[in-house]
Amino acid sequence: MGRIAVAILGAGAMGSTLATPFVEAGHDVRLWGTWLDDEIIAALRRGEPHPGTKARVEPRARLFASDQLEQAVDGTDMVLLAVTSEGLDPVFALTVPYLKPTHRVVTVAKGFGRDGAGRVILLPDLLRSRLTPQLAAIPIIAVGGPSKAVEVGQRAPTCVTYAADRLEDARECQRLFGTKVYVIEASDDLTGLEICAALKNVYAIGLGICEGFKQREGILHNNMKGAVFQVAVDELAQVCVAAGGRAESARGLPGSGDLELTGEAGRNRVLGELIGGGMTADQAVAAMKAKGLTVEGYPATAYGREYCQQLGLDEQALPLLHGMYQILYRGAEPFEALLASLHRHYATRP
Amino acid sequence: MGRIAVAILGAGAMGSTLATPFVEAGHDVRLWGTWLDDEIIAALRRGEPHPGTKARVEPRARLFASDQLEQAVDGTDMVLLAVTSEGLDPVFALTVPYLKPTHRVVTVAKGFGRDGAGRVILLPDLLRSRLTPQLAAIPIIAVGGPSKAVEVGQRAPTCVTYAADRLEDARECQRLFGTKVYVIEASDDLTGLEICAALKNVYAIGLGICEGFKQREGILHNNMKGAVFQVAVDELAQVCVAAGGRAESARGLPGSGDLELTGEAGRNRVLGELIGGGMTADQAVAAMKAKGLTVEGYPATAYGREYCQQLGLDEQALPLLHGMYQILYRGAEPFEALLASLHRHYATRP
Repeated sequence: MGRIAVAILGAGAMGSTLATPFVEAGHDVRLWGTWLDDEIIAALRRGEPHPGTKARVEPRARLFASDQLEQAVDGTDMVLLAVTSEGLDPVFALTVPYLKPTHRVVTVAKGFGRDGAGRVILLPDLLRSRLTPQLAAIPIIAVGGPSKAVEVGQRAPTCVTYAADRLEDARECQRLFGTKVYVIEASDDLTGLEICAALKNVYAIGLGICEGFKQREGILHNNMKGAVFQVAVDELAQVCVAAGGRAESARGLPGSGDLELTGEAGRNRVLGELIGGGMTADQAVAAMKAKGLTVEGYPATAYGREYCQQLGLDEQALPLLHGMYQILYRGAEPFEALLASLHRHYATRP
Repeated sequence: MGRIAVAILGAGAMGSTLATPFVEAGHDVRLWGTWLDDEIIAALRRGEPHPGTKARVEPRARLFASDQLEQAVDGTDMVLLAVTSEGLDPVFALTVPYLKPTHRVVTVAKGFGRDGAGRVILLPDLLRSRLTPQLAAIPIIAVGGPSKAVEVGQRAPTCVTYAADRLEDARECQRLFGTKVYVIEASDDLTGLEICAALKNVYAIGLGICEGFKQREGILHNNMKGAVFQVAVDELAQVCVAAGGRAESARGLPGSGDLELTGEAGRNRVLGELIGGGMTADQAVAAMKAKGLTVEGYPATAYGREYCQQLGLDEQALPLLHGMYQILYRGAEPFEALLASLHRHYATRP
């Protein structure tokens, strides 16, 4: 299979940007905007830059507005879901009627969902639960790794991991979408990749907190940031293994590679910096909201804690995740809470 | 053993700063300056701050000038070597006559040395080769992990790994030196820790290069930096295993934890930024030298390449280390060299 047709569902920063490597890899790319993206699609049709990212969107991508989902998906080989974790379930429910058994489904959404019984689940499991029996064999592939949308659109080199339950499905994406500057690693650890994608945002807030201490105390806390980074990677590895995934994902591109990036830049880090600098978590979340910025790591902290409890991982097993929950939801003093988690992870080890 | 006497040999940034946690942990601490440190010891004796770091040095540490090595070591239980990798061999040769079989030797030096046959070796092996038969059982312990000296002196929280061939020797240091803000992990992977300590500086130059691209190209390369970070950790793990150490060290505090810090701040990163920004490697090294700054990662690149060749790891096995060598010593264009190493690591994997 050389040239395929792919429908990118969601015209936000990541969806609109992925048109660039996919078109450059030689494919027929359609970009569909959700009902929240109608203005984006209208602006792109007028030849303007993306209203959100201010970047030019690859003009060879064909544009579809929210009422054109069927046309966008019709005749494609693959759909790629690039919506928020909250938007994923409703968008996919609308999409399923247009899928064929030969489709592949790729998701770049990051976060958690809930099943019918109210249990926290990973997003690929949420997608799978929506598939009808005749579509049950459709491969679901998720994307992780250090990948800021703006840089992908600028053709700055980016290495990402595509993971599926069957390695062959990830390898197909590697072959189809890899370009000189969009480098793809294939993995069969879908579970591990998803855990890293969702939880790394929680830990990135912790890295931001260490940066914020400088404002409050007048001295750098880069040693602490390095230590928090490492404990985060170790905890991600524990969660991956407990969920049936592999530590390798946490200690690879989807985990430590992405956390290195997320701790340097982005909303999660900014939220953390505000808290480290002296705001309460509530104040900091409100300050971000006032600027129109939602921070993925904030809800992911509560979801992630619940998910880990379901796996039997308590606060003794994951002191940093627990510390982040206490800081973000229970008013814990961030310096003492982070320091206590470092002690629990290192000093008291056998 | 509760209170011990420890002689810190070398009064540079790290040696003078370690007096702080060691005194706070309740020990009798002596600080000896090498013949390069005479002005430092003189200034400290006058009650002035450290001339190099401008920081106040813990006043309860007893000071010894370069001609007082015997007095500094006499009656101690431990010597801690805090000199450069070049200074390590001559300083230790002078120290050995004053050691007793009950001494422990700790080193915070980072880098490589050569044995009598001219082969590249790790620094603890260099130290061991200097021990006389009656001292042969002395434990050698090395320190790694994200630890900028200035922050240790400011009591900013710091997590480090002490590693020895026998875990019990590292555990003793953990018990003796741990404080509320100086948190110690014990490891029995001395080889792995040393490899990370020496080689992480090479890779930190690579992270700096990614930062530098912004100056030249006007756009951020944080995705690339995250990918280079991950390839660096993966290569460190390979070298650890090939040398008889453990991947765990590379994927823990001595490897990825320290690299996170080193890629954020420090001379290695600065050198990389100059190169990424457009200087040739020679120009950048000269510019650093003109400011009196030696960059550990530069010689470590040539040593590290040779060390890995001795282990049978060639450029196919370690494309990023090889790429760094080509950039720093052979005039390779940094963007193309780094991108090629990412492709080799990810895209062509089985």
